[in-house]
Amino acid sequence: MPADTPNGLYGPENLPYGVYSAAGDPGRRRIGVRLGDDVIDLGAAATELGSPHAALLTAQTLNPLLAAGRPVWTAVRADLRAWLDERPGALPRVPLADVRLHLPFDVADYVDFYASEHHATNVGRIFRPDGDALTPNWKHLPIGYHGRAGTVVVSGTPVVRPHGQRRTPDGPVFGPSRRLDIEAEVGFVVGAPSRLGEPVPQAAFRDHVFGVCLVNDWSARDVQAWEYVPLGPFLGKSFATSVSAWITPLDALDAARCAPPERSHPLLDYLRDDAASGTEPGGFDLRMTVTLNGHTIAEPPFSAMYWTAAQQLAHMTVNGASLRTGDLFASGTVSGPEPHQRGCLLELTWSGEDPVELPGGTRTFLEDGDEVVITAWAPGPHGSRVGLGEVSGRISPAAAG
Amino acid sequence: MPADTPNGLYGPENLPYGVYSAAGDPGRRRIGVRLGDDVIDLGAAATELGSPHAALLTAQTLNPLLAAGRPVWTAVRADLRAWLDERPGALPRVPLADVRLHLPFDVADYVDFYASEHHATNVGRIFRPDGDALTPNWKHLPIGYHGRAGTVVVSGTPVVRPHGQRRTPDGPVFGPSRRLDIEAEVGFVVGAPSRLGEPVPQAAFRDHVFGVCLVNDWSARDVQAWEYVPLGPFLGKSFATSVSAWITPLDALDAARCAPPERSHPLLDYLRDDAASGTEPGGFDLRMTVTLNGHTIAEPPFSAMYWTAAQQLAHMTVNGASLRTGDLFASGTVSGPEPHQRGCLLELTWSGEDPVELPGGTRTFLEDGDEVVITAWAPGPHGSRVGLGEVSGRISPAAAG
Repeated sequence: MPADTPNGLYGPENLPYGVYSAAGDPGRRRIGVRLGDDVIDLGAAATELGSPHAALLTAQTLNPLLAAGRPVWTAVRADLRAWLDERPGALPRVPLADVRLHLPFDVADYVDFYASEHHATNVGRIFRPDGDALTPNWKHLPIGYHGRAGTVVVSGTPVVRPHGQRRTPDGPVFGPSRRLDIEAEVGFVVGAPSRLGEPVPQAAFRDHVFGVCLVNDWSARDVQAWEYVPLGPFLGKSFATSVSAWITPLDALDAARCAPPERSHPLLDYLRDDAASGTEPGGFDLRMTVTLNGHTIAEPPFSAMYWTAAQQLAHMTVNGASLRTGDLFASGTVSGPEPHQRGCLLELTWSGEDPVELPGGTRTFLEDGDEVVITAWAPGPHGSRVGLGEVSGRISPAAAG
Repeated sequence: MPADTPNGLYGPENLPYGVYSAAGDPGRRRIGVRLGDDVIDLGAAATELGSPHAALLTAQTLNPLLAAGRPVWTAVRADLRAWLDERPGALPRVPLADVRLHLPFDVADYVDFYASEHHATNVGRIFRPDGDALTPNWKHLPIGYHGRAGTVVVSGTPVVRPHGQRRTPDGPVFGPSRRLDIEAEVGFVVGAPSRLGEPVPQAAFRDHVFGVCLVNDWSARDVQAWEYVPLGPFLGKSFATSVSAWITPLDALDAARCAPPERSHPLLDYLRDDAASGTEPGGFDLRMTVTLNGHTIAEPPFSAMYWTAAQQLAHMTVNGASLRTGDLFASGTVSGPEPHQRGCLLELTWSGEDPVELPGGTRTFLEDGDEVVITAWAPGPHGSRVGLGEVSGRISPAAAG
């Protein structure tokens, strides 16, 4: 069992990257790698041990490492594994409890998809009860939209309840959101950029995508419901999007690769990922848990997602749109087929009609002071488990005015 | 008449900022100010003349100047005006024809609004012929969405016809867009950032917004029509957005301020801009011209926009979303009430039903090789005119495959 291994979910098969500052030197940001409950100072280790990549690893963010591309990512991880095997005592480390974790990379563009059939079906039933649950395009392309990169914040950042317009029978009114929600998602971090005009096929996924984080795409459902026709979500989402402090490299998730659900509709060539297409399995078997004030309210299975990250990458660039280092694209709410597998309160409470039971009371949507924590783990090699950090946030009361 | 003044539309009342490289030194980017058909090397001038802001003005982009805030913007402009008055011969300049112009600032987040009632009404009639032309929210809030910041390109960059999915009676097919369009817009460039959680009211518009550019929001209408329900435009827009190379400072547009059209619906407090609200006039009297292969196809009046940039700024931040230096927000297609005032081919040709007549033939949507140029001017002080650069782009054929 992972709990019995010395480093739990953060053993040498994991080694996620983050950015931290130490208590004694709060102004200096360093790149760290999590090992158990410690953080390895990767820049100091690389410098002391003579890594040819020390310049990248002494940066203030992960961006230079992200930009360096797959061969460097592989080499840095191999060096780190070798150092851990051969001279673990030489690696400078500090207890995780003694550091502050920062947003690990500068976010370029942020795109949010809508890739769970179960989520899209539930939301369609709730928002458009008189129409088809899925829009006609849903099975033909991974629907997505751009979000606000400038309000992506690191796990632990308080989330202030947003003000906004909401619809009433007497016309719109303005005030603090009354239907503040979460969306439990998985994010993919782009490392190597691409050129404008040159699509990135699914086969190039590993060349461009560095790793994976957890995402909470906070959502003000009342604001969203009023604003989103015809140009999509805007202020209902843009007030904050939280990401985990640790970016798990794709290489740590090889054992978690799995086939996505069977496709009910034939796909256009650039999206095909059946066995005959020659693509590697595009799914990831990530087991997510959502807690509200310490109580588990959902266990969404990422393996149930209809559209894969490789398909999303191919779709996002098929019109020639370029990728930049630091682009973040998230899956959309992860929901499975079962009621306890739904990744947002809108679905879990069926738009507030069926409150979630908590030890201290019930919830339809989030109340001030509520804390949400999303965690996940994936199967690793040899029966190990790979942890995906956590993304947490507590709701602060709306600002005055 | 402006044409008779020595510097035409780029006299000392204008002085827009850009970034250029000189033919003899193509690797070095410099901040320039346009005067007539010359470019003043602002960094060199500031250094030679002992400006306290020389460090900002010798940067490779406008971002450090943008970040410095209103007092510095005012001081730099005042210095430049004084130098032009007192020692114009001391200012190093180079002919515009001898420089290459670059994207003048690093775009942080890009938001596109939908602020013309005439445009929204026409598009609503075309896309949703059985419904109301305007959605119920349109008169209550400035509808907008986030676009792709990473594919904002400078005027003159070729635009490759994008591939994408389009709907047919037999299901979606993939190929080059057949309905490639323009959107003639005006963009506002954010200088001073704001803090997460703190809305920026209309009254703080001048503190945060540095200046104005022209925008062509290229649009693949067939891709957009298939993808945009329910989360808004995505690949139909994200392949390229062109901006003018020159950013006109707000201070150059004081004489162009005008009242927006009368509001037909009462507004919530944060959006109010009637005389009693104490806000300054939020409109700008910019006269735009759209040419296709040298032939004028539209003359959209920016003064007709229903929602102002100050309202957009207030709305975009009212949920606590922060601003970053380099944020760009654009107006949406500028269309006036008259048929020749419509800022996109979708409207000008009524979705292709009524082609535009050109000297060499007709157009419904853009053909390969077509060049679109959008220009604008505004009334300046004392009967002068202030030019807003131009945003141009030529369509290249779709890539192979």
